[in-house]
Amino acid sequence: MIEPHSPQSCDLLIEAGWVVPVEPHGVVLDDHAVAVRNGEILAILPRAEARARFAAAEVVERPGHVLLPGLVNAHCHNPMTLLRGVADDLPLMTWLQDHIWPIEGALIGPEFVADGIELAVAEMLRGGTTCASEDYFFPDVQAATYKRLGFRALVGLPVIQFPTAWASSQDEYFDKALEVHDNWRGDALVRTCFAPHAPYTVSDESFARIRMLADQLDLLVHLHLHETAHEADEAVKQHGMRQIARIDRLGLLNSQLIAVHMTALTEAEIALCAERGVSVVHCPESNLKLASGFCPVEKLRRAGVNLALGTDGCASNNDLDMFGEMRTAALLAKGVAQDASALDAASALRMATLGGARAIGMGETIGSIEPGKRADLVCVDLREIETQPLHHVISQLVYATGRQQVSDVWIDGRAKLRQRVLVDIDTDALKAKVARWRQRIATMPAAR
Amino acid sequence: MIEPHSPQSCDLLIEAGWVVPVEPHGVVLDDHAVAVRNGEILAILPRAEARARFAAAEVVERPGHVLLPGLVNAHCHNPMTLLRGVADDLPLMTWLQDHIWPIEGALIGPEFVADGIELAVAEMLRGGTTCASEDYFFPDVQAATYKRLGFRALVGLPVIQFPTAWASSQDEYFDKALEVHDNWRGDALVRTCFAPHAPYTVSDESFARIRMLADQLDLLVHLHLHETAHEADEAVKQHGMRQIARIDRLGLLNSQLIAVHMTALTEAEIALCAERGVSVVHCPESNLKLASGFCPVEKLRRAGVNLALGTDGCASNNDLDMFGEMRTAALLAKGVAQDASALDAASALRMATLGGARAIGMGETIGSIEPGKRADLVCVDLREIETQPLHHVISQLVYATGRQQVSDVWIDGRAKLRQRVLVDIDTDALKAKVARWRQRIATMPAAR
Repeated sequence: MIEPHSPQSCDLLIEAGWVVPVEPHGVVLDDHAVAVRNGEILAILPRAEARARFAAAEVVERPGHVLLPGLVNAHCHNPMTLLRGVADDLPLMTWLQDHIWPIEGALIGPEFVADGIELAVAEMLRGGTTCASEDYFFPDVQAATYKRLGFRALVGLPVIQFPTAWASSQDEYFDKALEVHDNWRGDALVRTCFAPHAPYTVSDESFARIRMLADQLDLLVHLHLHETAHEADEAVKQHGMRQIARIDRLGLLNSQLIAVHMTALTEAEIALCAERGVSVVHCPESNLKLASGFCPVEKLRRAGVNLALGTDGCASNNDLDMFGEMRTAALLAKGVAQDASALDAASALRMATLGGARAIGMGETIGSIEPGKRADLVCVDLREIETQPLHHVISQLVYATGRQQVSDVWIDGRAKLRQRVLVDIDTDALKAKVARWRQRIATMPAAR
Repeated sequence: MIEPHSPQSCDLLIEAGWVVPVEPHGVVLDDHAVAVRNGEILAILPRAEARARFAAAEVVERPGHVLLPGLVNAHCHNPMTLLRGVADDLPLMTWLQDHIWPIEGALIGPEFVADGIELAVAEMLRGGTTCASEDYFFPDVQAATYKRLGFRALVGLPVIQFPTAWASSQDEYFDKALEVHDNWRGDALVRTCFAPHAPYTVSDESFARIRMLADQLDLLVHLHLHETAHEADEAVKQHGMRQIARIDRLGLLNSQLIAVHMTALTEAEIALCAERGVSVVHCPESNLKLASGFCPVEKLRRAGVNLALGTDGCASNNDLDMFGEMRTAALLAKGVAQDASALDAASALRMATLGGARAIGMGETIGSIEPGKRADLVCVDLREIETQPLHHVISQLVYATGRQQVSDVWIDGRAKLRQRVLVDIDTDALKAKVARWRQRIATMPAAR
């Protein structure tokens, strides 16, 4: 007898109580499975049909869990994870000048960057994050570290008007940026983009050079923009216009721009960002902690602006918890808009997944569970007391789930967390390394 | 040979890497121990001295943990935990009239109250909360349930201008209130107070009666007040004054008042609350989720008002996570005050412990680790990746710790959670009970 449909082979079949693909928007599929081959999503289908259609090398059964696309942290400074809580509750300039900058100045280098990122990756994986958009110095070390750990990243190539441990002149910033870009071209996990620090620390000349190179090399531009009202006001004094207008005049306000923070926006600026296809990365917890101001998330959403979510660095958050960040975003948007229906749960989840992927140029690759996309996937256990009763899955994920309920994580089809255990990070060795950094930092007066 | 100091007997000695007593403010004691006898805290002393001074029936060693006073949730509606996430992201009146009230109307009764509270207690214990100030119907059932579970509570005696399943007339509300008060007088764990619903649902006459009885019986008054700017504005139309002025005229704005929410306050109202010794319960996540407005927490703190923290009900939060609530309070206060130094970590922790205890009339009994107080204690494991490196203990507790890092909890000296396991709640049986409520609610059109 010939089988009418002989099963297709695949590497991995994940069977879950629920699958939330993110695209289509707001949908929850009960009792579904996802098949993966060579790191690619082959199919999403009812659990009952999955084993007949696929002969899987590995089957993972998670009947009390929801399967999601991996979360995308669209703005972070992950080496700073080593500075978690080193100085808090201080006015912005005291915090920077008396604490963060002196400590960074003394420590920054390849070892600090590599160890900080390893700690960050361990934390991100345990919290369901599978991709980071990174903004720090030593992008060569960043890229190598993310690659070694099998973590997906967009690595920013820094440009700033001051000498740092990474480069001492504008030419050196650009030369090194192009070299790192070239070394990582075509990599499956790690991509690069330009990361000019902020409008007030980068000259018109350097922005023009970035624009030219970004066009030539088809690179995105990751930029802190309108972090505070003060920044916008100062620009009027110095440049005769607000920073958004200046960035627009310089030809950078376009669909290649990843604009981070974006507080204190006028209606006209919101409309302009929508028209130009700018992506906005909202960092609600950092904006609150540094009293930076409020990003008008609901207005941007209604204007059609693509929205992403970021934690910012651990020195101003103090974690890399994208579940917490989704929740804060959904709650804060309502308070700011004075509307309890603003930024609903499904929209917050979209910001943390597909919105982030699109912002960082990976919208065709990741951010949703769709056939043909890469298998960056996260399982979340909803059986805990804290997520009972379970009336609505997406509401529960955004408003009640803690990141420790993440059970399993895959990146590019490879298991990175299995039943809460990190697959390829030695947690004890990592903690020992981090403890040595803590001891070193503790001797510094700037660590209070 | 005679021992110069023969050891004193005690029931329990907890040795911790750090003890944060909350009083004195902001202090962290390294390597300390707490001795407990008959549910009372006997001493806090260096770990090295503890075993010489005390012969303990049980020694609990937690070298990587911090020991805190149990958290006090100063405003909750815990039976509503069964409605977690049943309807979200809706305008306030749609949410109440089309969802919450119809569902409550169909379900409310002794069984709903008892089961909802049992679920809430399981969640609170797993998150380090040891005391709840409860505001719901069927206070008799509430009190019996908290007592049965060995959980500390202040149970509100409801008064509202409408008939409900609990009482059908004002006289019945008062008769039943007095009866429940009388039944629980002198109990070690459960106390009662008046809980008039809100200024807009309670008449002047009933407030006068509450004032008289509260004075006679020495009872606190737990009241939603200025939840929204709309509430204050409507009062001007109806009563010719804002609600705070009306409550003051009725003689209730005093040190017996537990004023919940308190958004949209004028400078004069803040000064008046400070002068009268009113305690304010801030519910930041509920205020955000329902777009109620912003409580000026830092201004209240600077004016010297005693501040407490509450989650509000699970239908508008959607959890009972006091670690999350501390963090949101500390972050939001900075955004609202436009000052990154507003509500520092130690002050947020104080709101969640001693501030709450004082607000609900238990400041002499609980809220800090001091000799003579009852042993409501919580151990938190700081060894996780998410709280490394550990630069500052109190910062870490407020800005980075997740509630799942709570390892052990004691109430009145009795173990309620041991190494993450609930001592006297059968989790599987509880989940089965909750699943039956979920099924019943799922059939209701109001559950969407």
